[in-house]
Amino acid sequence: MSKLFKIGVDAMGGDNAPAEMVKGAYMAIEKYADVEVTLFGREDEIKKHLPATHERIQIVHCDDVIPMDIGDPAMAIRRQKESSLVVASKAVKKGEVDALVSAGATGALIAAGTLLVKRLKSVERPALAPIIPTVKKDATTILCDAGANSEAKASFIYQNAKLADIYAKTVLGIQNPKIGLLNIGTEDAKGGVEQVEAFALLKNDTSLNFLGNIESKSMISGEVDIIAADGYAGNIALKAVEGTAKDLLGLLKDEIMSTTKGKMGGLLLKSTFDGIKEVVNPKTVGGAILLGVGAPVIKSPGSSDAETFMYAIGHAKKAVENDVVSKIDVALTALKETTE
Amino acid sequence: MSKLFKIGVDAMGGDNAPAEMVKGAYMAIEKYADVEVTLFGREDEIKKHLPATHERIQIVHCDDVIPMDIGDPAMAIRRQKESSLVVASKAVKKGEVDALVSAGATGALIAAGTLLVKRLKSVERPALAPIIPTVKKDATTILCDAGANSEAKASFIYQNAKLADIYAKTVLGIQNPKIGLLNIGTEDAKGGVEQVEAFALLKNDTSLNFLGNIESKSMISGEVDIIAADGYAGNIALKAVEGTAKDLLGLLKDEIMSTTKGKMGGLLLKSTFDGIKEVVNPKTVGGAILLGVGAPVIKSPGSSDAETFMYAIGHAKKAVENDVVSKIDVALTALKETTE
Repeated sequence: MSKLFKIGVDAMGGDNAPAEMVKGAYMAIEKYADVEVTLFGREDEIKKHLPATHERIQIVHCDDVIPMDIGDPAMAIRRQKESSLVVASKAVKKGEVDALVSAGATGALIAAGTLLVKRLKSVERPALAPIIPTVKKDATTILCDAGANSEAKASFIYQNAKLADIYAKTVLGIQNPKIGLLNIGTEDAKGGVEQVEAFALLKNDTSLNFLGNIESKSMISGEVDIIAADGYAGNIALKAVEGTAKDLLGLLKDEIMSTTKGKMGGLLLKSTFDGIKEVVNPKTVGGAILLGVGAPVIKSPGSSDAETFMYAIGHAKKAVENDVVSKIDVALTALKETTE
Repeated sequence: MSKLFKIGVDAMGGDNAPAEMVKGAYMAIEKYADVEVTLFGREDEIKKHLPATHERIQIVHCDDVIPMDIGDPAMAIRRQKESSLVVASKAVKKGEVDALVSAGATGALIAAGTLLVKRLKSVERPALAPIIPTVKKDATTILCDAGANSEAKASFIYQNAKLADIYAKTVLGIQNPKIGLLNIGTEDAKGGVEQVEAFALLKNDTSLNFLGNIESKSMISGEVDIIAADGYAGNIALKAVEGTAKDLLGLLKDEIMSTTKGKMGGLLLKSTFDGIKEVVNPKTVGGAILLGVGAPVIKSPGSSDAETFMYAIGHAKKAVENDVVSKIDVALTALKETTE
């Protein structure tokens, strides 16, 4: 029998939890023959939504749930020891499962990943690396960091580029990923002290395919494979993209629905709008990985439905299968030794 | 005879300069009976595009032009002394004209405003304050700072809010402008040290209608009248909005044009798309004002056509008419005295 990839699933995190998470886990089991899922959460609720029992699905009952609107994630992680997220994270740390997937609060998952799954010693700060769909056919862009660490230091930005580079090569199969540094202009000397220093670090690292600075106006243009950023600027850029897309498409929908002519036009353009929705709210991307911790930790969008969540589980499997964590640890340990 | 507002116009700055700038200036003269325009630039080229001579249009010949893709704006301002932008800025400083309008390179205009029109002594750093159209009917949002000063310090962010508040009240006639602080979350304690300190400064100032933190996903939602930001984050957020809107609408257009059904749908939705284009690329907003310098300095978009540029001249007139510069100077001088 071939190796099984054991994915730990926080069944209680997400706007549509546990129903969609449980269904998504079942879909994943059917889609990926080499995946085994352990569902962490309230057993009775999980059982209610599970289409059938399955030899590759286990349930670990947890009484507590960390809510989506948690104010102080680190505190919640420390206090809510019986929560599905904390119990699942500890199971990852103990090696009982190989990876963790959650659609719960982003801050809580980052805290759980950093404090419980634990940061790799070779990594200064873990970084969240969502895959952003772009308007360029079949091109996506990894943003790293999207907000796991809000401190803007040159060494963090450089490290974020390294983490994303290894992830892109290992998990996504991108041969020589093009890297841009998020900045307020494209000229070499743009930005503040930290950006200028990060630029130099990236430029001097001949193992990286560094193209120079990139502006946030190119976030969904598909010009590069990786946008390296401090978590503060990355978060601002990503949320601006998401909010603008949502607001513009909402406006378009309102206008279309307001007249008969509009409704007719909308019908004719249905397939067009569906294509654009996939850019704005992609199901198949499989969530964002938290890089720099001891196992793959995947954040599925809070609004995930079963299909989206299934792909997040597939993403976790791919990260385990390709051993991205060890590869990061080896590369960043070597880097640390040369710079110390 | 009533007072004339003397607007200095850099006729050579902009992607469509001088043709559209000169035509726009002529349109402004016809629209605003109390405006007098001085066009700075190459006299022969200006005359070629001017529909007719007019008693309220003067020309000041300047040999040189600062290009749109200028790498080092501050250096250009110092060296290109015969350029239209430098000569126009000096005319503002000398009081020969009351305000300056340019569609030239943003960095060059900020440098000219700061170094030649000169910063007000009461203001730490000038800030660029574009008016962002939103998806909410008749609601716009001022972003301050959009990138004049890329250093993120709490006192700068607080000052940016003050500048925008006075501008909103004085020039835009907004009674009690709602202010949000751009941040990576809506909770009070979000962000780094500077954001937390800026939050406290804003909260303690009872003259401001401060609503708390706002995320970049709300950039075009119209929730607040003013988004206060450091210039770095403001620039990142604004360009992400602009790029996303442009890329998504471009994709929509490509898809529509690719099939007959799409083209028919597109025709039926023409008025809808026109409405959305106005949100994305507004003609009537009148450009962005540089706040904190000794006279109104207006940046019209680089892609300005004559109509857009006419509104930028109207914006400059309104800023002079309502004496926003003196009001800023009085308020920030008082603030400086209480904090020193």
